[in-house]
This record gives sequence, structure tokens and C-alpha cells, in this order.
Amino acid sequence: MDQLVIPQILIEASEKYPAQGIWADNEFTPYPEVLAQVMQLARALSQKGIRKGSVVGVLDVNSLYHLELHYALGFLGAIIHPLNFRLSLNDLEYTVRLAGDEWLFFGPEFASLGHSLKGLVPRQILMGKEFSALMSHGLPAAPDLSLKETDPYSVCFTTGTTGRPKAALYRHRDLVLTSWQIVHHMALHDTPARLGMNEVILPLIPFFHMHGWGIPFMAPYIGASVVLAGKVSPASQAKLIYRHGVTWSSMVPTQLQALLKTLTEPLTEPLKVLTGGTAVTSGLAHRAEQLQIALSVIYGGADQLGSAISAVPPHTALSSVDRSLILTARVLPLPAVEMTVRDQNGHTLPPDGLSTGEIWVRSPWLPQGYFKNPQASQSSYHDGFFVSGDLGIGFPDGTFAVVDRLSEAVKIGDEWIPTHFLETMISDIEGIEQVAVLPLISPQWGDRPVAVIQAHQPIEPEAITGYLQAQVEAGRIRQFWIPERIFYIAKMPLTSAGKINKQTLVAKLDQLPEYPMA
Amino acid sequence: MDQLVIPQILIEASEKYPAQGIWADNEFTPYPEVLAQVMQLARALSQKGIRKGSVVGVLDVNSLYHLELHYALGFLGAIIHPLNFRLSLNDLEYTVRLAGDEWLFFGPEFASLGHSLKGLVPRQILMGKEFSALMSHGLPAAPDLSLKETDPYSVCFTTGTTGRPKAALYRHRDLVLTSWQIVHHMALHDTPARLGMNEVILPLIPFFHMHGWGIPFMAPYIGASVVLAGKVSPASQAKLIYRHGVTWSSMVPTQLQALLKTLTEPLTEPLKVLTGGTAVTSGLAHRAEQLQIALSVIYGGADQLGSAISAVPPHTALSSVDRSLILTARVLPLPAVEMTVRDQNGHTLPPDGLSTGEIWVRSPWLPQGYFKNPQASQSSYHDGFFVSGDLGIGFPDGTFAVVDRLSEAVKIGDEWIPTHFLETMISDIEGIEQVAVLPLISPQWGDRPVAVIQAHQPIEPEAITGYLQAQVEAGRIRQFWIPERIFYIAKMPLTSAGKINKQTLVAKLDQLPEYPMA
Repeated sequence: MDQLVIPQILIEASEKYPAQGIWADNEFTPYPEVLAQVMQLARALSQKGIRKGSVVGVLDVNSLYHLELHYALGFLGAIIHPLNFRLSLNDLEYTVRLAGDEWLFFGPEFASLGHSLKGLVPRQILMGKEFSALMSHGLPAAPDLSLKETDPYSVCFTTGTTGRPKAALYRHRDLVLTSWQIVHHMALHDTPARLGMNEVILPLIPFFHMHGWGIPFMAPYIGASVVLAGKVSPASQAKLIYRHGVTWSSMVPTQLQALLKTLTEPLTEPLKVLTGGTAVTSGLAHRAEQLQIALSVIYGGADQLGSAISAVPPHTALSSVDRSLILTARVLPLPAVEMTVRDQNGHTLPPDGLSTGEIWVRSPWLPQGYFKNPQASQSSYHDGFFVSGDLGIGFPDGTFAVVDRLSEAVKIGDEWIPTHFLETMISDIEGIEQVAVLPLISPQWGDRPVAVIQAHQPIEPEAITGYLQAQVEAGRIRQFWIPERIFYIAKMPLTSAGKINKQTLVAKLDQLPEYPMA
Repeated sequence: MDQLVIPQILIEASEKYPAQGIWADNEFTPYPEVLAQVMQLARALSQKGIRKGSVVGVLDVNSLYHLELHYALGFLGAIIHPLNFRLSLNDLEYTVRLAGDEWLFFGPEFASLGHSLKGLVPRQILMGKEFSALMSHGLPAAPDLSLKETDPYSVCFTTGTTGRPKAALYRHRDLVLTSWQIVHHMALHDTPARLGMNEVILPLIPFFHMHGWGIPFMAPYIGASVVLAGKVSPASQAKLIYRHGVTWSSMVPTQLQALLKTLTEPLTEPLKVLTGGTAVTSGLAHRAEQLQIALSVIYGGADQLGSAISAVPPHTALSSVDRSLILTARVLPLPAVEMTVRDQNGHTLPPDGLSTGEIWVRSPWLPQGYFKNPQASQSSYHDGFFVSGDLGIGFPDGTFAVVDRLSEAVKIGDEWIPTHFLETMISDIEGIEQVAVLPLISPQWGDRPVAVIQAHQPIEPEAITGYLQAQVEAGRIRQFWIPERIFYIAKMPLTSAGKINKQTLVAKLDQLPEYPMA
């Protein structure tokens, strides 16, 4: 067996950190026992006929079984496909078909969803009694000694906010290397979610998102213990944090927001949180800080894995204002990652803090294309780079601001206006609850940027444009980014994922008032 | 070009850390300029006929040219062989022949030695004017885009204390991965030579020892600046430390001892030092501490690269006494390194803090055998492990004590007595200057351990055995390790490398007194 393979991480943890392990359902399983169960499971799976190259779907929350399958299937050289149970059934079926799942494991909560997939994947195993029976007989499996670091390990899907989800095939070494560098970046740098070896980690990112951002591999790698939440509410997450002395967690901003709402007073021990996926508003960052929660922001995705995490750039002295700006609104590439901002012709733009273009990323763990989708691969992977579809700005200190999705940004002539970036900036104004920057579409005059505001209190349009004008003068934004009109709304329309529904907003702009609501 | 290749490190540093770079001869060259010179040099070398697979010897101190050749040859896919100028001419010629050097670059100090090698390597280039001329014409080289991470990068030799030096062939990825993990180990752990990104590094290990323990790769990787000392005395090393604000250095204990002697008062800024190669006595550690120098100890070698560095084991609370013991006398395997202690049948011994056996090491960057030496390979590399020839003890906390070379340890029946370990322990007794633990050879009764003492003041044999008996009772050593007789000497005989000449001592034991000298 090669060494840059996933199972090696658990073997090493069980030797080096025998007292650390996994908390799940109030039970603690130390790593050596996790390994023993994984070996037994691997043997049972192998007796069922699962072997090298088999594709196995798993439909479950972040459970101990789910984590153990991550290792047992890895031992066998089988390919795990963690299913995104938040997709529509139609999209879910699409992913099952594209991945080519030959088996389906499902958790007790997903019996009915599993049943719906029976036609597509007849070989199903409930991760309850049947599962335990699987594991209770047979000797520990001998690991597949022919496992190579370049063997495929898993298929993960993008969330597919536009169009069908797309998949990436990760090799063992891709996940080992990205896990190493995420860990090392946070150990080497001055970053709020600095990672040591004594953390107790609560991963709140579901495993179907790039294996929960790699926590099932990172935690045993550094000898940290893990608390698996299963399917719980934000209130019970808070209880888990207290009960297990959680020191480090990972979640998207909406999860963080929900968690913060359940906290009535600051945590007694500081909590470090790695967040990302969408922008962190300075309001959210501020509330987190008040509650003793320190945030670092990660940039990446299923089609590129981890690429950058916010940190104070080395050799830099910062004021506390700049520090908090850099740590919530900028990211620093992981060691060995090459990140550039390019114009639409693929020419690299200068990292001057203003030139806005598309982010291109290259890393030793980058997938070389989408799985079974040559057309999408061709448009998104060039010369070893992933062309991210994200709008970004490079800064002279080596950091990057990821300001928008290209598909949501507003284009004026040849230039992009980064709407998320502006939204984060506008949301700093006292009293503003939500804000969306949109294009006012005019075939005759070209698109112009406008903003829609939801506020606690009446805020005059001039207060907003005046504030932004000051940002222009401070060199932080460009003149032509300032919204030309400000609209007001009582309650933003939201998508099912809880994001502002910009399409709906654009369509109803002409019905919105251009003066503050009482 | 693959990404886990040496040149990629310099490309990344010149983009991410453009203000950092190399100090040499009081001149500072930032990384982007180092890269530009390296590209030009690569083109010039290529015009001379050096290409992929060419083997190029370099005979030089740690100079800027030497470092640039490390990258320029790497760009071309040529193989660098840094020559150990401390070897005898006979051994040096042996290494040149074994490596198959087709070219020889030599520094101005090595003109005469270079001349002596003319017969073996006719194509020679003086790294002075001729070298600069090489670099002054031609456009920057296009990097060799066909470079693979598995391509060979260099040939390095062991020091060959017993028999001829042996060589290892390192691939690009071997050196990239070991450099990563050395850096990351020291960033993740609680260790005195903790490595951050703002260090100024003075590498005092010559490049012919595993490329100066990898500093030419590690420093640009983390964006640290490097101070190259060239050929200087300990006194001028101290001046370099003050002049450039050096925060981190690497050197063997004899270099450290020499440096300490030149310091009349504590350093004004703390200095972190990575040391290793031979044991650090607690006396040396104590003197270093008084002078504001903090030590971490590395374990490795040309035949295995880096394997372990002393650090407080995670999840462990230590008293300050235990802490200093662990940090000077024990090492913790680097992440992804598997280290075990085995008996002579290859069976793993329990990490109980007492069972003594041979250290076996496995890592993702381990060479798979000696270069052009199948016989030595067969006896030292088994099942993907390097069988180190080092005597060690594993501890329950995951640390290891490297206590001796097997070839120098004393064997009683089937059991080993770790002489270096005992020597370090005995040297803690006030007044003892040097100590050697040796076998008193008796074909009739079997070998017995004895000690030879060089002391400032008279110390009774009972004081020594009594002290060791207390260590037995504290569970630190075994009863049968205690030397059965104590001999005294006024001045230890030394080898040319400054180590105690144990062979001479063994031969003259019967002439030494068994009572303290006045």
C-alpha cells in the first residue's frame, strides 16, 4: 500500500494518538477502536462483493458509521459517493446515475429516500441493525496492499446552484495533500481559527460537501478528537459544544448565524470556526467576536478542493481594523497553491487591489476535469488551472478577495462590479439588515448597478451613496461601482437555500419604492 | 511541469514573498531576483550541454551560487551531487565515480581540490568569473515543462563513518514532501525551534549533508529569508547572527558548542536552533538556554531523510524537568512517518520506555535503496522500511530515544545497552567533562559495560553507580546497564571528527586507573 492514501491516516492516528477519537451519540470511540471496526467492516463489505473500483453511495448525516465507511471503502479501493440529501429527488437521481452507484448505504433517517432510489440502486444496506450484523462476523480485513496514491477515492458533487450538479473524482493523494495543506496553513499562519494538535473538532459541514471540508481526514491526521453531531438543531449543537469542550468547528455562515441565535451569552471557552462558501458580513463577524467565536474563511469548492484560507499575510504589520478586514474579506492561498486573477482573455491582472477578474487556481490536488462531463471540463479546466467562475481581486500583500460569482456580478461595459463585495460593505451601515446589489437591465443604456435595502430604520439613499463615496476616496472601491439607484423592501425574497433570490428581485424592481420605509 | 518539484518552490516564493530572499556576502538578493538568475543560469547550463539526467557535482560552501545551482539544475531535470569536501581525497573520488559526475562546479576555495579531480571529471567550471560570464548572456531559460515529480533530483552521500560513504538518489517529490513535513511538524508542535513564517534562517549544515537538511527548500517555501555564511569561523557566525537578526539556525552539536564558546553574554534576541546528528548533552542544552538559545533535535540521515523532531507530545502536560528531558533526548516522528523499534528478528518491541532495539522507519519520502549498491540496499531496506542501524527505545507517549549506533552499543547476551544514552545521563553529574561507556571484552564471561570518565574534580566511582542506581529505581534505565567498573582518564582520545575514539579507549582500558584523578 502506498503511503499517501486515506486509510494510512487512520492507521497513523491509532498508533500515535490512541487516546483521541470520535464522539458520536454520547459515546466515545478511540481511534484504535475506530480502526478495528473499520477493518472488520472492510472485510464484511468485501464478502458482500464490494471491491476495488466499486462505486458506493452513502446517504447519511455526519455519523460514526458514515465516517467509518469513508475509511473501510478506502481500504478496499472502492469509491465512496456521499449523497447530497438536500438535492431535489430529480437531481439526486441524476447524481446517482452519473456516479454509477452500485450500492447504497443509508442512515435510519433516510429510509424513505433510500426506498425512492431502489429502482436505480437495488443493492441497499440500512446503516442500522443490518449494518451492525455485517460487522459482527468475520476477521479483520487485510488492507488492500495494492492501493496506490493515484487510485480514485471518491466522487463528490457541486451543489449545482446553476444547472445540474457536476462531479469531481478525487484520488487518494488529492485528499491527503489538500488535508495536509489546510492543516499546515492554519498552523503556520496568524489566523483566528489557528489549528493546534489539541483541538476538539465539531464538523458541521455535511460529508457530502467535499467530505465535510476534509475534517474526517484532518482530525485524525493531527490527533484531534471529533464530535459528530448527526442530525441536530442549532440549539443542540450549542449543547454539544459545551458538553465536549469543542474548541474548533467548521460551518457555512448561515449555520453560524443560526448557532449564534441560540447563544444567549458569550461562550465560556473561545471557539475557533472555519467558515466559507458565501461572504461573511462584518455584522456576523462582529456578533461572533462578541460571543468569543473567532473566524477564518476558506475558499474552495468541489471542483478545486481547498485553495485559500484567510490569514494575516507574513511579514505584515496590520492595524486591528485592517486585520479584521483581511481576516473576514480576504483569503491567502494555501502553501503550494497558485492563484491568479485573469481578464476574459485569460491574461493575468495585476494584484493592485482594484482590478477585478476571474479567479484561476492551480494546486497539486486539483481534479483534472469534471467526472464524465468533457464539455464542462473543457470550459472550466485550462492548462492545469481551474477557471473558477468566481470574480476576484488580487492585493499587493498576496491576499485575494473573492467578491462574487461571475454569473451574479454586474457587468458595465468590459468591467465587472463585484456585488457581494459591495453588499458586505453596505451591510456595515448601522440599521441595514439585508442588501442586494443588482443590475437594472436596460438594453438601450446598458446595465447599471442598483441596490435593494431591507432596514430596521429609515436610511436615506444619500446616506448610502455618501458612505460609498467615502470608500471610493479611500481607494477601496471604484467610482462606477456605486449603485445609481437605491430601492427599499420590507422583506427580501429568499431561495430554498436561504439566499436572497436575486432573480425575483430583478423582476420586481419597478414595483419597489426609492425612499426609506418607515 | 508537475507541481511537487523543487523549482516550483522558488517560483512560488518569488510570487508570494517578493521582499524576502537571500543574504550572502553582505548582499541581499530577493527571491524574484534569485529566480531570474536561476532561469538565466539554467539556460547557460543547457547551452553548455547539461540536460535532463546529467549528473553535476558541486564542490562549494553554502554560497548563493551553490543555492542557485540547486534550482537551475532542478529546472533542467539534471541531477545535483553536492560534494562532501571533508572526505579524504580517496573517499571523495569514490563518491564522484559512484555518482557518475559528468560536470564539476567548484567554488574559489576549492580550486586545488577541483584540480585533483580533473582526471575523473574533465569538464569543470570555476564558480567565479567564468560562472558569472555563463550567466550574463542568453535569455531566461524556459523551464523544462516535462519535469515529473518522480524524476531524480540529486545524489547525496552518507558520511560513511564505517566503511565507504553510501549514496541515496532523491526524487523531486521526496525532497518537497520531507521539507513540507519538517516545516509543518515545527509549526504544529510545541517545540523550542518552532518555525514561523517570519524567521531569518542561518543554515550552518553544509549543503552536502542532505542539502543542508533541506533549508534551501524550506526557507523559500515558508517565505523566510536565508543568511548564507559561506566559509566562516564560529566568531563570524555570531556576527552574522547579530547583523542580520537571525532568529533560526541549524547546526550539529559540535558547531553549537563552538558557537557558544564565542558568545560572552546572552544573545539580545532569542535564537531557535535545530540540531541533531549526535546526542545533545544536558550540559550543552543548559549552556544554550543560558545564552537565550532554544534547541529542538532532529533525527534522520542521508539514507532516510528527515524522520523525527523533538517536541512535546500532543495531549500531554509535562513538568519543566520532563519537558527539557523530552526536548533534548527524545524525538517525535514527523507527520506521515512510521517509526518502530524492533528486535533482531524484525519483531516490533513495545513502546514501554525500556525495550531497546533497532529503529525501523517508513515515510512517503524514503529512498527505496542505496544508489548503485544492491548489497547494502538489501541489508538496510526491508518491506518499504529503512533499517536504520540506530539503537532506540519507544515510549508510551509516542516519542523515541535514539540511544546509540548499533555498531557502538554494548550487547549483553541478547540485550543491548545504549551507551550514548548512559553517557548523556552520566554527563549530568556535576564535574564530569566527558564520559564514554564501552564494552570490557571478555570472551569467557561475555562483554560487560564499563565507563571511562574525564572530570574537572575527583568523583568517586560510588557516586556514579549510586546516581545510576537511583535512575534504575525511577524506572529510567535497567539494572544491567550500570557500568560494572569505572575507569578514569585525564584527556579523552578523539577522532579527526572530534568524537571520542572508543576503539583506542577499548584497547587501552587495562592501562587506566579505577580511582579518581586529582
